[in-house]
Amino acid sequence: MTARLSVAFAMSAVSLERVFPPERQAAIAEIAEIRGILTEFDSADALGVLAEVEVIVTGWGAPVVDLAVLDAAPRLRAVLHSAGSVKPYIAQAVLDRGVQVSSAAAANAVPVAEHAVAMIVLAGKRALPIAARYREVRAYFDIEAAFPGMGNFGNRIGIIGASKVGRLVLERLRAFEFEVVVYDPFLTDAEAADLGAVRVSLDELLATSDVVSVHAPLLPSTIDLIDRRGIGLMHPGATLINTARGEIIDQAALTERVVAGEIFAVLDVTTPEVLDADDPLYASDHAIVTPHIAGSMGRELGRLARSVRDELVRLSADEPLAHAIDARALAITA
Amino acid sequence: MTARLSVAFAMSAVSLERVFPPERQAAIAEIAEIRGILTEFDSADALGVLAEVEVIVTGWGAPVVDLAVLDAAPRLRAVLHSAGSVKPYIAQAVLDRGVQVSSAAAANAVPVAEHAVAMIVLAGKRALPIAARYREVRAYFDIEAAFPGMGNFGNRIGIIGASKVGRLVLERLRAFEFEVVVYDPFLTDAEAADLGAVRVSLDELLATSDVVSVHAPLLPSTIDLIDRRGIGLMHPGATLINTARGEIIDQAALTERVVAGEIFAVLDVTTPEVLDADDPLYASDHAIVTPHIAGSMGRELGRLARSVRDELVRLSADEPLAHAIDARALAITA
Repeated sequence: MTARLSVAFAMSAVSLERVFPPERQAAIAEIAEIRGILTEFDSADALGVLAEVEVIVTGWGAPVVDLAVLDAAPRLRAVLHSAGSVKPYIAQAVLDRGVQVSSAAAANAVPVAEHAVAMIVLAGKRALPIAARYREVRAYFDIEAAFPGMGNFGNRIGIIGASKVGRLVLERLRAFEFEVVVYDPFLTDAEAADLGAVRVSLDELLATSDVVSVHAPLLPSTIDLIDRRGIGLMHPGATLINTARGEIIDQAALTERVVAGEIFAVLDVTTPEVLDADDPLYASDHAIVTPHIAGSMGRELGRLARSVRDELVRLSADEPLAHAIDARALAITA
Repeated sequence: MTARLSVAFAMSAVSLERVFPPERQAAIAEIAEIRGILTEFDSADALGVLAEVEVIVTGWGAPVVDLAVLDAAPRLRAVLHSAGSVKPYIAQAVLDRGVQVSSAAAANAVPVAEHAVAMIVLAGKRALPIAARYREVRAYFDIEAAFPGMGNFGNRIGIIGASKVGRLVLERLRAFEFEVVVYDPFLTDAEAADLGAVRVSLDELLATSDVVSVHAPLLPSTIDLIDRRGIGLMHPGATLINTARGEIIDQAALTERVVAGEIFAVLDVTTPEVLDADDPLYASDHAIVTPHIAGSMGRELGRLARSVRDELVRLSADEPLAHAIDARALAITA
């Protein structure tokens, strides 16, 4: 039996309340000593906590963990991030210095993948546009004539990005009778086949898929990855689902085709993050827009807390972290 | 190599066109001799066809296969139904006489289960009510405060009816971190556990589930199975999904609670089948109503045709049918 790890939380007060409300802090306190809850790393109080802690649990709104923090925390063994992307919160130099860093990105990917797969199924069914039409006509109409190509049997699903979320989506699509294609510049044909998909070019994916779901990270190289020309390749009746980042898509070009009734859009992310009040996407019966809810929300925040707790259990037992960040991989992840 | 089976189609012209368009008839013709396409069994032409055929492929809108048809078809070995419920199309006496009867109910269950699971996920997320709210306010709002209890982690899903569809839904729910409970009067605790669920009473299911999905058959005993009292048991924020039959739910009681904003409804079936134009469910942001699309539609009709073709292959090889109807089971299925 080793001594209990000494832990500090570092995140915004809102994140602490959402991800680690009292009952989940109590679950952490069962296995570790909570030394402090920090929103900054500069005050004398904060420096006093840092001098003691072996683990910092970061989260949304955390102050950045950089070399100055490492210098102030000589006993630090690990930084456990309770959300997805660590990039805004942990300096690359921290990884280079050999401090273990882990993220809850895998846990955070689960609800996004679940949401995307649900939307892929409903897109195949045209369920939401059909509901909108039904609400409008309030009478019988010839559904198959109005929505040609509907139905989830043998249609082609295009996954852009074999990211954490993309891979979970691909795994879940195995339960369906779909043809799945994937575009990812870092993926080989063999890796794609292992994921149950056929690797294709981005152009082929856009031109041939009935439903396209975007799971690429936001990087300089992925801004406008699906540009006006790419949007133009999508065939009539196809659906574009974006649960990744708005900047990856040329939204103006997408909006034109959606408003023209040519293609459908399911957008959980947009540019700007909250659409302008007069944005035509709100009212289009060819679009469904949600305000960035696919990631962990409400109860799903409990999965993030569990992920951190499980990592703490591993650290306490001197086992390897399950979700360690590889310093070299940071450049190609979000 | 046995002689090719002699087959007649019997269904409405619309069903023939939807389920067996020329290319799928051609796929049948590769393995069997198509003797005729019937919309009735009474004319001299029809009787001439019946006198020859070994297999009748029925479908939606088929004339009823009864003992008179059997008498007219002395070589008949099997009736293969290309849709779900055989009850409206095949007399019990036909089963009792020992003619093999098979249905595409298993194939038809797939899209219903896919649709229901997608809606279960989106219900957990409150995705469609949130989209409706976002469309209305067109600005940032505190989503978790407006939709308490949202999120798909650890919430309880109640499945009513371990039917073909219900079992497929239960199977697919294993991919999630849900607590699953099931109500079915014919199910044992052990069978429920094998399905990954805990067997509970209908009252307990309704009172404790975050999302309830109805998969019971329509039988005299299931009309109003979820009555006003049962609807009243559902907790605020819960969702009722019905992809089975409208008559199973007290729709007036449901509508009252939905319109009051207490619970959510996802209805693919209603009473009447097409809601009256002034029905408040159309406009409620707590309801999403689709016009009976969860079952096989569009491309999914190809799965029904494939199911029939696969049964014909088995018959040709003197193998047992994969989806034979048990005469004794007919009473408790839809």
